[in-house]
Amino acid sequence: MYIEESIQHYLDELASAQPTPGGGSASALSGALGAALASMVCRLTPGKAGYEEVQSEIEQIWEQTERLRARFAQLLQEDIAAYGQLAAAYRMPRGTDEERSERAATIQQRLAAAARVPLEVVEGAATITSLCRRIAEIGNVNVLSDILASTALERAAAEGAAAMVRINLRPMKNAQLAAELEERLANAWQSVEQGRLEVAAIVGRRA
Amino acid sequence: MYIEESIQHYLDELASAQPTPGGGSASALSGALGAALASMVCRLTPGKAGYEEVQSEIEQIWEQTERLRARFAQLLQEDIAAYGQLAAAYRMPRGTDEERSERAATIQQRLAAAARVPLEVVEGAATITSLCRRIAEIGNVNVLSDILASTALERAAAEGAAAMVRINLRPMKNAQLAAELEERLANAWQSVEQGRLEVAAIVGRRA
Repeated sequence: MYIEESIQHYLDELASAQPTPGGGSASALSGALGAALASMVCRLTPGKAGYEEVQSEIEQIWEQTERLRARFAQLLQEDIAAYGQLAAAYRMPRGTDEERSERAATIQQRLAAAARVPLEVVEGAATITSLCRRIAEIGNVNVLSDILASTALERAAAEGAAAMVRINLRPMKNAQLAAELEERLANAWQSVEQGRLEVAAIVGRRA
Repeated sequence: MYIEESIQHYLDELASAQPTPGGGSASALSGALGAALASMVCRLTPGKAGYEEVQSEIEQIWEQTERLRARFAQLLQEDIAAYGQLAAAYRMPRGTDEERSERAATIQQRLAAAARVPLEVVEGAATITSLCRRIAEIGNVNVLSDILASTALERAAAEGAAAMVRINLRPMKNAQLAAELEERLANAWQSVEQGRLEVAAIVGRRA
Protein backbone atom coordinates (compact mmCIF):
# COMPACT_ATOMS: atom_id res chain seq x y z
CA MET A 1 0.00 0.00 0.00
CA TYR A 2 1.65 3.19 -1.24
CA ILE A 3 -0.34 5.28 1.23
CA GLU A 4 1.60 3.70 4.13
CA GLU A 5 4.97 4.33 2.46
CA SER A 6 6.90 7.59 2.26
CA ILE A 7 6.02 10.47 -0.06
CA GLN A 8 9.56 10.22 -1.45
CA HIS A 9 9.01 6.56 -2.35
CA TYR A 10 5.73 7.32 -4.14
CA LEU A 11 7.31 10.20 -6.09
CA ASP A 12 10.25 7.97 -7.09
CA GLU A 13 7.91 5.22 -8.32
CA LEU A 14 5.75 7.76 -10.17
CA ALA A 15 8.84 9.15 -11.94
CA SER A 16 10.15 5.67 -12.83
CA ALA A 17 9.78 3.84 -16.16
CA GLN A 18 7.25 1.44 -14.57
CA PRO A 19 3.75 2.00 -15.92
CA THR A 20 2.25 2.28 -12.39
CA PRO A 21 1.66 4.41 -10.43
CA GLY A 22 0.75 6.83 -13.22
CA GLY A 23 -1.52 9.80 -13.90
CA GLY A 24 -4.69 8.18 -12.56
CA SER A 25 -3.16 7.38 -9.18
CA ALA A 26 -1.49 10.81 -8.88
CA SER A 27 -4.85 12.42 -9.68
CA ALA A 28 -6.48 10.47 -6.83
CA LEU A 29 -3.73 11.75 -4.49
CA SER A 30 -4.42 15.30 -5.65
CA GLY A 31 -8.08 14.71 -4.77
CA ALA A 32 -7.03 13.50 -1.29
CA LEU A 33 -4.84 16.60 -0.77
CA GLY A 34 -7.73 18.90 -1.70
CA ALA A 35 -10.12 17.00 0.59
CA ALA A 36 -7.59 17.25 3.45
CA LEU A 37 -7.33 21.04 3.01
CA ALA A 38 -11.13 21.34 3.00
CA SER A 39 -11.15 19.31 6.24
CA MET A 40 -8.54 21.66 7.75
CA VAL A 41 -10.70 24.73 7.08
CA CYS A 42 -13.68 22.88 8.63
CA ARG A 43 -11.56 22.09 11.71
CA LEU A 44 -10.44 25.73 12.03
CA THR A 45 -14.00 27.11 12.03
CA PRO A 46 -15.97 25.74 15.04
CA GLY A 47 -15.17 27.31 18.39
CA LYS A 48 -14.11 30.61 16.79
CA ALA A 49 -16.05 33.72 17.77
CA GLY A 50 -18.62 34.64 15.13
CA TYR A 51 -18.99 31.10 13.82
CA GLU A 52 -21.30 29.68 16.51
CA GLU A 53 -24.31 29.42 14.21
CA VAL A 54 -22.54 27.42 11.50
CA GLN A 55 -20.82 25.01 13.90
CA SER A 56 -23.14 22.03 13.40
CA GLU A 57 -23.34 22.48 9.63
CA ILE A 58 -19.57 22.73 9.25
CA GLU A 59 -19.08 19.62 11.38
CA GLN A 60 -21.41 17.71 9.04
CA ILE A 61 -19.47 18.96 6.02
CA TRP A 62 -16.24 17.89 7.73
CA GLU A 63 -17.54 14.32 8.08
CA GLN A 64 -18.13 14.25 4.32
CA THR A 65 -14.73 15.72 3.38
CA GLU A 66 -13.06 13.18 5.69
CA ARG A 67 -15.02 10.28 4.19
CA LEU A 68 -13.99 11.34 0.68
CA ARG A 69 -10.37 11.86 1.75
CA ALA A 70 -10.31 8.21 2.85
CA ARG A 71 -11.96 7.12 -0.40
CA PHE A 72 -9.42 9.07 -2.53
CA ALA A 73 -6.62 7.32 -0.62
CA GLN A 74 -8.14 3.95 -1.62
CA LEU A 75 -8.56 5.07 -5.24
CA LEU A 76 -4.85 5.96 -5.36
CA GLN A 77 -4.21 2.23 -4.89
CA GLU A 78 -7.22 0.88 -6.84
CA ASP A 79 -6.11 2.75 -9.96
CA ILE A 80 -2.78 0.90 -9.86
CA ALA A 81 -4.58 -2.46 -9.46
CA ALA A 82 -7.10 -1.78 -12.28
CA TYR A 83 -4.33 -0.67 -14.64
CA GLY A 84 -2.23 -3.74 -13.77
CA GLN A 85 -5.18 -6.07 -14.46
CA LEU A 86 -5.84 -4.42 -17.81
CA ALA A 87 -2.16 -4.66 -18.82
CA ALA A 88 -2.22 -8.37 -17.85
CA ALA A 89 -5.31 -8.91 -20.06
CA TYR A 90 -3.46 -7.43 -23.05
CA ARG A 91 -0.67 -9.98 -22.43
CA MET A 92 -3.07 -12.98 -22.53
CA PRO A 93 -2.33 -15.65 -25.20
CA ARG A 94 -3.98 -15.31 -28.60
CA GLY A 95 -2.88 -18.48 -30.39
CA THR A 96 -6.31 -20.08 -30.94
CA ASP A 97 -9.74 -18.64 -31.74
CA GLU A 98 -10.88 -19.56 -28.24
CA GLU A 99 -7.91 -17.75 -26.68
CA ARG A 100 -8.51 -14.68 -28.81
CA SER A 101 -12.16 -14.50 -27.83
CA GLU A 102 -11.33 -15.08 -24.14
CA ARG A 103 -8.67 -12.35 -24.28
CA ALA A 104 -10.97 -9.86 -26.04
CA ALA A 105 -13.74 -10.42 -23.49
CA THR A 106 -11.33 -10.02 -20.56
CA ILE A 107 -9.91 -6.80 -22.03
CA GLN A 108 -13.41 -5.35 -22.43
CA GLN A 109 -14.32 -6.24 -18.86
CA ARG A 110 -11.12 -4.70 -17.44
CA LEU A 111 -11.38 -1.57 -19.59
CA ALA A 112 -14.67 -0.87 -17.84
CA ALA A 113 -13.05 -1.36 -14.42
CA ALA A 114 -10.05 0.81 -15.44
CA ALA A 115 -12.45 3.58 -16.53
CA ARG A 116 -14.61 3.41 -13.41
CA VAL A 117 -11.77 4.12 -10.97
CA PRO A 118 -10.69 7.50 -12.46
CA LEU A 119 -14.38 8.32 -13.08
CA GLU A 120 -14.95 8.00 -9.35
CA VAL A 121 -12.00 10.40 -8.84
CA VAL A 122 -13.71 12.99 -11.09
CA GLU A 123 -17.02 12.51 -9.26
CA GLY A 124 -15.28 12.78 -5.87
CA ALA A 125 -13.61 16.00 -7.02
CA ALA A 126 -17.05 17.34 -7.99
CA THR A 127 -18.42 16.53 -4.53
CA ILE A 128 -15.49 18.14 -2.68
CA THR A 129 -15.74 21.23 -4.90
CA SER A 130 -19.42 21.55 -4.09
CA LEU A 131 -18.66 21.18 -0.34
CA CYS A 132 -15.94 23.84 -0.75
CA ARG A 133 -18.56 26.24 -2.08
CA ARG A 134 -20.48 25.99 1.19
CA ILE A 135 -17.26 26.11 3.26
CA ALA A 136 -16.27 29.28 1.36
CA GLU A 137 -19.61 30.83 2.39
CA ILE A 138 -19.59 29.94 6.07
CA GLY A 139 -16.00 28.91 6.94
CA ASN A 140 -13.30 30.80 8.86
CA VAL A 141 -12.49 33.81 6.68
CA ASN A 142 -8.82 33.74 7.74
CA VAL A 143 -8.09 30.46 5.95
CA LEU A 144 -10.10 30.89 2.75
CA SER A 145 -6.94 30.84 0.64
CA ASP A 146 -6.67 27.18 1.65
CA ILE A 147 -10.12 26.64 0.12
CA LEU A 148 -8.80 28.12 -3.15
CA ALA A 149 -5.88 25.68 -2.97
CA SER A 150 -8.35 22.87 -2.27
CA THR A 151 -10.51 23.57 -5.33
CA ALA A 152 -7.37 23.95 -7.48
CA LEU A 153 -6.24 20.46 -6.37
CA GLU A 154 -9.72 19.02 -7.03
CA ARG A 155 -9.70 20.50 -10.51
CA ALA A 156 -6.32 18.91 -11.22
CA ALA A 157 -7.64 15.59 -9.86
CA ALA A 158 -10.66 15.84 -12.18
CA GLU A 159 -8.68 16.93 -15.24
CA GLY A 160 -5.98 14.25 -14.92
CA ALA A 161 -8.46 11.49 -14.09
CA ALA A 162 -10.77 12.54 -16.97
CA ALA A 163 -7.89 11.99 -19.42
CA MET A 164 -7.52 8.45 -18.03
CA VAL A 165 -11.27 7.73 -18.28
CA ARG A 166 -11.29 8.81 -21.94
CA ILE A 167 -8.32 6.57 -22.80
CA ASN A 168 -10.18 3.56 -21.44
CA LEU A 169 -13.49 4.46 -23.09
CA ARG A 170 -11.96 4.69 -26.57
CA PRO A 171 -11.39 0.93 -27.19
CA MET A 172 -14.66 -0.01 -25.44
CA LYS A 173 -17.01 -2.03 -27.66
CA ASN A 174 -20.16 -1.77 -25.50
CA ALA A 175 -21.37 1.55 -26.90
CA GLN A 176 -24.18 1.87 -24.38
CA LEU A 177 -21.84 1.48 -21.40
CA ALA A 178 -19.31 3.86 -22.94
CA ALA A 179 -22.01 6.48 -23.51
CA GLU A 180 -23.26 6.08 -19.95
CA LEU A 181 -19.78 6.51 -18.43
CA GLU A 182 -19.08 9.44 -20.75
CA GLU A 183 -22.23 11.18 -19.62
CA ARG A 184 -21.29 10.72 -15.95
CA LEU A 185 -17.85 12.11 -16.79
CA ALA A 186 -19.28 15.17 -18.56
CA ASN A 187 -21.66 15.90 -15.67
CA ALA A 188 -18.98 15.58 -12.99
CA TRP A 189 -16.50 17.68 -14.95
CA GLN A 190 -19.04 20.45 -15.52
CA SER A 191 -19.82 20.45 -11.82
CA VAL A 192 -16.09 20.85 -10.95
CA GLU A 193 -15.66 23.73 -13.41
CA GLN A 194 -18.83 25.55 -12.35
CA GLY A 195 -18.10 24.98 -8.66
CA ARG A 196 -14.58 26.36 -8.71
CA LEU A 197 -15.73 29.58 -10.39
CA GLU A 198 -18.39 30.00 -7.70
CA VAL A 199 -15.84 29.33 -4.93
CA ALA A 200 -13.46 31.93 -6.40
CA ALA A 201 -16.27 34.50 -6.55
CA ILE A 202 -17.34 33.85 -2.94
CA VAL A 203 -13.76 34.01 -1.61
CA GLY A 204 -13.21 37.22 -3.60
CA ARG A 205 -16.21 38.81 -1.87
CA ARG A 206 -15.38 37.60 1.66
CA ALA A 207 -11.57 37.73 1.85
CA MET B 1 10.93 15.84 7.15
CA TYR B 2 7.43 15.06 5.87
CA ILE B 3 8.82 13.73 2.59
CA GLU B 4 10.38 10.77 4.44
CA GLU B 5 7.14 9.99 6.28
CA SER B 6 4.06 8.21 4.92
CA ILE B 7 1.52 9.78 2.57
CA GLN B 8 -1.14 8.91 5.16
CA HIS B 9 0.72 10.87 7.85
CA TYR B 10 1.05 13.93 5.61
CA LEU B 11 -2.66 13.82 4.67
CA ASP B 12 -3.63 13.48 8.36
CA GLU B 13 -1.47 16.48 9.32
CA LEU B 14 -2.83 18.51 6.39
CA ALA B 15 -6.42 17.76 7.50
CA SER B 16 -5.70 18.59 11.15
CA ALA B 17 -6.41 21.86 12.96
CA GLN B 18 -2.69 22.68 13.03
CA PRO B 19 -1.85 25.59 10.75
CA THR B 20 0.94 23.64 8.99
CA PRO B 21 1.22 21.91 6.61
CA GLY B 22 -1.32 23.99 4.68
CA GLY B 23 -2.14 25.04 1.14
CA GLY B 24 1.36 26.23 0.25
CA SER B 25 2.97 22.94 1.19
CA ALA B 26 0.26 20.87 -0.56
CA SER B 27 0.75 23.00 -3.67
CA ALA B 28 4.48 22.21 -3.65
CA LEU B 29 3.61 18.49 -3.43
CA SER B 30 1.27 18.88 -6.40
CA GLY B 31 4.19 20.43 -8.31
CA ALA B 32 6.38 17.44 -7.37
CA LEU B 33 3.68 14.98 -8.55
CA GLY B 34 3.44 16.77 -11.92
CA ALA B 35 7.23 16.84 -12.30
CA ALA B 36 7.39 13.10 -11.50
CA LEU B 37 4.80 12.32 -14.22
CA ALA B 38 6.75 14.43 -16.73
CA SER B 39 9.88 12.45 -15.75
CA MET B 40 7.98 9.18 -16.30
CA VAL B 41 7.04 10.14 -19.86
CA CYS B 42 10.69 11.11 -20.50
CA ARG B 43 11.80 7.70 -19.17
CA LEU B 44 9.28 5.88 -21.41
CA THR B 45 10.48 7.56 -24.62
CA PRO B 46 14.19 6.68 -25.29
CA GLY B 47 14.85 3.21 -26.65
CA LYS B 48 11.41 3.02 -28.28
CA ALA B 49 11.31 2.58 -32.09
CA GLY B 50 10.65 5.86 -33.88
CA TYR B 51 12.08 8.01 -31.05
CA GLU B 52 15.82 7.61 -31.83
CA GLU B 53 16.25 11.20 -32.99
CA VAL B 54 14.79 12.79 -29.87
CA GLN B 55 16.64 10.55 -27.40
CA SER B 56 19.33 13.02 -26.37
CA GLU B 57 16.93 15.98 -26.15
CA ILE B 58 14.44 14.04 -24.02
CA GLU B 59 17.23 12.91 -21.69
CA GLN B 60 18.22 16.54 -21.17
CA ILE B 61 14.61 17.47 -20.43
CA TRP B 62 14.42 14.56 -17.97
CA GLU B 63 17.41 15.95 -16.04
CA GLN B 64 15.53 19.23 -15.64
CA THR B 65 12.22 17.64 -14.57
CA GLU B 66 14.11 15.54 -12.01
CA ARG B 67 15.98 18.57 -10.65
CA LEU B 68 12.69 20.44 -10.22
CA ARG B 69 11.00 17.41 -8.66
CA ALA B 70 13.73 17.43 -5.97
CA ARG B 71 13.31 21.19 -5.50
CA PHE B 72 9.51 20.91 -5.11
CA ALA B 73 10.07 18.26 -2.43
CA GLN B 74 12.25 20.76 -0.53
CA LEU B 75 9.68 23.54 -0.98
CA LEU B 76 7.01 21.30 0.58
CA GLN B 77 9.08 21.51 3.78
CA GLU B 78 10.37 25.09 3.38
CA ASP B 79 6.81 26.41 3.16
CA ILE B 80 6.05 24.89 6.56
CA ALA B 81 9.22 26.48 8.03
CA ALA B 82 8.56 29.92 6.52
CA TYR B 83 4.96 29.92 7.75
CA GLY B 84 6.06 28.81 11.22
CA GLN B 85 8.63 31.62 11.42
CA LEU B 86 6.05 34.19 10.35
CA ALA B 87 3.52 32.93 12.91
CA ALA B 88 6.25 33.16 15.59
CA ALA B 89 6.96 36.78 14.58
CA TYR B 90 3.29 37.69 15.07
CA ARG B 91 3.54 36.24 18.61
CA MET B 92 6.54 38.46 19.55
CA PRO B 93 6.05 40.78 22.57
CA ARG B 94 4.76 44.29 21.94
CA GLY B 95 4.83 45.87 25.41
CA THR B 96 7.36 48.65 24.71
CA ASP B 97 8.03 50.87 21.68
CA GLU B 98 11.28 49.02 21.10
CA GLU B 99 9.53 45.64 21.18
CA ARG B 100 6.83 46.86 18.81
CA SER B 101 9.35 48.16 16.31
CA GLU B 102 11.43 44.96 16.58
CA ARG B 103 8.29 42.87 16.05
CA ALA B 104 7.11 44.93 13.06
CA ALA B 105 10.53 44.66 11.37
CA THR B 106 10.68 40.90 11.94
CA ILE B 107 7.17 40.41 10.55
CA GLN B 108 8.07 42.36 7.40
CA GLN B 109 11.22 40.31 6.87
CA ARG B 110 9.40 37.00 7.35
CA LEU B 111 6.47 38.03 5.15
CA ALA B 112 8.96 38.37 2.30
CA ALA B 113 10.37 34.91 3.04
CA ALA B 114 6.86 33.43 3.32
CA ALA B 115 5.95 34.95 -0.07
CA ARG B 116 9.14 33.80 -1.82
CA VAL B 117 8.61 30.09 -1.11
CA PRO B 118 5.17 29.78 -2.82
CA LEU B 119 6.40 32.16 -5.55
CA GLU B 120 9.12 29.65 -6.34
CA VAL B 121 6.42 26.96 -6.53
CA VAL B 122 4.54 29.03 -9.16
CA GLU B 123 7.77 29.62 -11.10
CA GLY B 124 8.68 25.93 -10.90
CA ALA B 125 5.21 25.03 -12.20
CA ALA B 126 5.79 27.41 -15.12
CA THR B 127 9.10 25.71 -15.95
CA ILE B 128 7.64 22.17 -15.79
CA THR B 129 4.68 23.26 -17.94
CA SER B 130 7.05 24.65 -20.54
CA LEU B 131 9.09 21.39 -20.50
CA CYS B 132 5.78 19.48 -20.86
CA ARG B 133 5.09 21.41 -24.05
CA ARG B 134 8.27 20.02 -25.61
CA ILE B 135 7.63 16.53 -24.17
CA ALA B 136 4.13 16.63 -25.70
CA GLU B 137 5.73 17.36 -29.09
CA ILE B 138 8.44 14.69 -29.06
CA GLY B 139 7.57 12.21 -26.28
CA ASN B 140 6.09 8.71 -26.50
CA VAL B 141 2.61 9.19 -27.95
CA ASN B 142 1.22 6.26 -25.89
CA VAL B 143 1.62 8.08 -22.58
CA LEU B 144 0.58 11.60 -23.52
CA SER B 145 -2.44 11.45 -21.20
CA ASP B 146 0.11 11.45 -18.36
CA ILE B 147 1.43 14.76 -19.72
CA LEU B 148 -2.10 16.17 -19.48
CA ALA B 149 -2.24 14.98 -15.87
CA SER B 150 1.17 16.58 -15.28
CA THR B 151 0.15 20.02 -16.57
CA ALA B 152 -3.12 19.78 -14.58
CA LEU B 153 -1.09 19.17 -11.39
CA GLU B 154 1.29 22.05 -12.22
CA ARG B 155 -1.66 24.37 -12.73
CA ALA B 156 -3.06 23.38 -9.33
CA ALA B 157 0.37 23.94 -7.78
CA ALA B 158 0.54 27.40 -9.36
CA GLU B 159 -3.02 28.37 -8.45
CA GLY B 160 -2.80 27.27 -4.82
CA ALA B 161 0.67 28.76 -4.31
CA ALA B 162 -0.37 32.04 -5.97
CA ALA B 163 -3.14 32.45 -3.38
CA MET B 164 -0.48 32.06 -0.65
CA VAL B 165 1.87 34.58 -2.27
CA ARG B 166 -0.93 37.17 -2.46
CA ILE B 167 -1.83 36.70 1.22
CA ASN B 168 1.76 37.48 2.21
CA LEU B 169 2.11 40.43 -0.18
CA ARG B 170 -0.97 42.19 1.20
CA PRO B 171 0.50 43.32 4.58
CA MET B 172 3.93 44.06 3.03
CA LYS B 173 5.07 47.65 3.63
CA ASN B 174 7.97 47.70 1.15
CA ALA B 175 5.92 48.64 -1.91
CA GLN B 176 8.82 48.22 -4.31
CA LEU B 177 9.53 44.66 -3.15
CA ALA B 178 5.81 43.80 -3.20
CA ALA B 179 5.48 45.11 -6.77
CA GLU B 180 8.55 43.16 -7.86
CA LEU B 181 7.26 39.87 -6.39
CA GLU B 182 3.80 40.54 -7.83
CA GLU B 183 5.25 41.01 -11.28
CA ARG B 184 7.18 37.74 -11.04
CA LEU B 185 3.95 36.07 -9.91
CA ALA B 186 1.94 37.48 -12.82
CA ASN B 187 4.60 36.40 -15.35
CA ALA B 188 4.88 32.87 -13.99
CA TRP B 189 1.12 32.44 -13.78
CA GLN B 190 0.62 33.62 -17.36
CA SER B 191 3.26 31.19 -18.50
CA VAL B 192 1.47 28.28 -16.75
CA GLU B 193 -1.89 29.21 -18.30
CA GLN B 194 -0.52 29.73 -21.79
CA GLY B 195 1.61 26.59 -21.59
CA ARG B 196 -1.18 24.27 -20.57
CA LEU B 197 -3.39 25.40 -23.46
CA GLU B 198 -0.52 24.73 -25.86
CA VAL B 199 0.09 21.28 -24.32
CA ALA B 200 -3.61 20.40 -24.66
CA ALA B 201 -3.59 21.46 -28.32
CA ILE B 202 -0.46 19.42 -29.11
CA VAL B 203 -1.76 16.31 -27.33
CA GLY B 204 -5.10 16.72 -29.15
CA ARG B 205 -3.27 16.70 -32.49
CA ARG B 206 -0.95 13.75 -31.72
CA ALA B 207 -3.04 11.38 -29.58
